[in-house]
Amino acid sequence: MPLTDIPPSVPQKPRRGRPRGAPDASLAHQSLIRAGLEHLTEKGYSSVGVDEILKAARVPKGSFYHYFRNKADFGLALIEAYDTYFARLLDQAFLDGSLAPLARLRLFTRMAEEGMARHGFRRGCLVGNLGQEMGALPDDFRAALIGVLETWQRRTAQLFREAQACGELSADHDPDALAEAFWIGWEGAILRAKLELRPDPLHSFTRTFGRHFVTRTQE
Amino acid sequence: MPLTDIPPSVPQKPRRGRPRGAPDASLAHQSLIRAGLEHLTEKGYSSVGVDEILKAARVPKGSFYHYFRNKADFGLALIEAYDTYFARLLDQAFLDGSLAPLARLRLFTRMAEEGMARHGFRRGCLVGNLGQEMGALPDDFRAALIGVLETWQRRTAQLFREAQACGELSADHDPDALAEAFWIGWEGAILRAKLELRPDPLHSFTRTFGRHFVTRTQE
Repeated sequence: MPLTDIPPSVPQKPRRGRPRGAPDASLAHQSLIRAGLEHLTEKGYSSVGVDEILKAARVPKGSFYHYFRNKADFGLALIEAYDTYFARLLDQAFLDGSLAPLARLRLFTRMAEEGMARHGFRRGCLVGNLGQEMGALPDDFRAALIGVLETWQRRTAQLFREAQACGELSADHDPDALAEAFWIGWEGAILRAKLELRPDPLHSFTRTFGRHFVTRTQE
Repeated sequence: MPLTDIPPSVPQKPRRGRPRGAPDASLAHQSLIRAGLEHLTEKGYSSVGVDEILKAARVPKGSFYHYFRNKADFGLALIEAYDTYFARLLDQAFLDGSLAPLARLRLFTRMAEEGMARHGFRRGCLVGNLGQEMGALPDDFRAALIGVLETWQRRTAQLFREAQACGELSADHDPDALAEAFWIGWEGAILRAKLELRPDPLHSFTRTFGRHFVTRTQE
């Protein structure tokens, strides 16, 4: 999923006393997370160094190591922050009671596309990026990334159940399997949109995926 | 697409005279390409250094710079070699005249899965990996990666046309759009299988994608 609006505040995990050189520790933490999300959704983990993050966040090295043991620890904190941010994005689309369930999914994909468009389709999904790089990442990233994807899938499966309950989706679909297929394809579409720097792959995916609904409900 | 069997020989682009320290230049080139494909399908581009490739290929630095100006040039050569290797893999599945068109696509996905299984689902698709990393790669990688994906899609669209001609696929599908959706989803499935180190995401994708055929042909 693309990064649309980075969360203004994220959970903090201070480790030692107040960091030297950071007059507002909370602000420094936020700046680091924000810069990390911006850089890693665009370039992934391996190609981004801590120095690049410090420079973008305008935060001294001491502040970074106040909050994070090392780059790997920072990476895990970014996954957590992205998860928090994403939960709110999904709330906004999936809990919109004025829309039918499948329209809420479409709202989500539109919001995601708008988020990518704001950054010229250069930023993708943190989870997709790190998932692709997993072979080069610390092994505890794996469970964190799978956990986030499973959360998104559970919420999407719930949406499909609601769509079945109101007759928008045929009962012969397995909501969990369909939700998994949605996220597999959607991550593929984000990857491709980022590669091509345009929204067309997102449309191509949603159009084809949407046929599952149309063909089944029209039977 | 996962790397199954790396091509025994690949096109060579010697630049200067015979490299010093490499008794068999052709063998050195092959070793470099092979090591590059092995490492980059697992770890991507950014996290793998030239020294790691030299060590794996057991080739001196001079040989590397005989064939490749730099790491970026090597990366482009790997995309070309992967394209060559992949063309043969697609030939093997898509030109199998003993099978109906859609069975050839299923053969391809099975072969791909077997290829991933041989390496414990740690190696994915070079094109997917580099596509995901594009924000950190030299810009001429973009056209090369899109070009390869479009070639795969054209071949797959042709297969869908054959499936339509023999009544396996409804005529109301746009073969090009369906082929694009296949590759978007398949790359997403490879990413996810690599993340989870298991084939389940591949099955989840092919099952859901396959419903396009079933629902349409049974109408």
